[in-house]
Amino acid sequence: MDLNKQLSFILELDKLKSVYRKALIKTDNNRFENSAEHSWQIALAAHVLVEHVEHNIDINRAVKMLLIHDIVEIDAGDTFAFAEVNQLEQQHEIELAAAHRIFGLLPDAQYQHFLSLWLEFEECKTHDAQFAKAVDRILPLIQNMANEGGSWAKHKVTKSQVLARNKYVKGLSESLWRYVAEQIDIATKNKWLVDV
Amino acid sequence: MDLNKQLSFILELDKLKSVYRKALIKTDNNRFENSAEHSWQIALAAHVLVEHVEHNIDINRAVKMLLIHDIVEIDAGDTFAFAEVNQLEQQHEIELAAAHRIFGLLPDAQYQHFLSLWLEFEECKTHDAQFAKAVDRILPLIQNMANEGGSWAKHKVTKSQVLARNKYVKGLSESLWRYVAEQIDIATKNKWLVDV
Repeated sequence: MDLNKQLSFILELDKLKSVYRKALIKTDNNRFENSAEHSWQIALAAHVLVEHVEHNIDINRAVKMLLIHDIVEIDAGDTFAFAEVNQLEQQHEIELAAAHRIFGLLPDAQYQHFLSLWLEFEECKTHDAQFAKAVDRILPLIQNMANEGGSWAKHKVTKSQVLARNKYVKGLSESLWRYVAEQIDIATKNKWLVDV
Repeated sequence: MDLNKQLSFILELDKLKSVYRKALIKTDNNRFENSAEHSWQIALAAHVLVEHVEHNIDINRAVKMLLIHDIVEIDAGDTFAFAEVNQLEQQHEIELAAAHRIFGLLPDAQYQHFLSLWLEFEECKTHDAQFAKAVDRILPLIQNMANEGGSWAKHKVTKSQVLARNKYVKGLSESLWRYVAEQIDIATKNKWLVDV
């Protein structure tokens, strides 16, 4: 019965609450942030920031992508954004298998729907996906800037890595890009980012 | 500038990650669940369960309500669902003040928009709000059933309290209501709920 499948999926989601990221929650004794609460925050951040985007965005599709984008980490774990390229490629295969397993808990139509949204986010060719990806990448920047460099400083991340990672912002919004570029300059001057 | 206000709001959201509820996360050493990760899970649960509803629901409005409904707990803390009525009434005043303070961090149009959605959820007169509220209340039931009574058993909650709390499900969806009523029966037979 469909409801039973849906309930299995909803209970499976519990597991994302124990996938920990590299960011620290200052307001909770500097514990690591988990991917479930991160997904909530970027969904809301997207609602708030969408007005800066210069293209037509279907904000509800973008938010839905953000709500599901990290679910694959239940099987695949969190990969640090600035891991080696080889590791990132291997990770994609593991995440794709995870997407099939976890969305596959749902009735078929919902499975296909979520899988296709997840793939759209990964491929990042539509404006909706690019905006979702941009928000997913701006949030760590906001957090690191509020946290004296945070995970950037700790893991010796470079300016060019952060510029590359935030490339989607550039084509979407002049005001968001100006903000991102300014923050990267400040972080580099403060030696929170390696100047390379 | 609007972006600075929006960034203050987004950073303020971090604080919901340290508001802890009564539910335990079995998959993470039985720690308490926080309201941020809970908000993520019910937003997705709403997307999955909406097909059971017999009225027209704007799922995106309902999900947005779920994403913001607990933000007031940053100032007001989490109130246990089965607290005394006096305590719940007093809580409402504190939460309303919190809604004004926290949504008030945003530019005026977004402040008014989120405040009005939050009030609609609280008043619970529209189908969108009733569905959002129903999902917010079904999820603890799903969790308690998967956890041998969970917070119900620990806090001696009664069958009639849980029935009253899930009343919105009844008018919205026959299949969800059938599921809820069955689970309450099972929980009562297992003495996870007091039979009153």
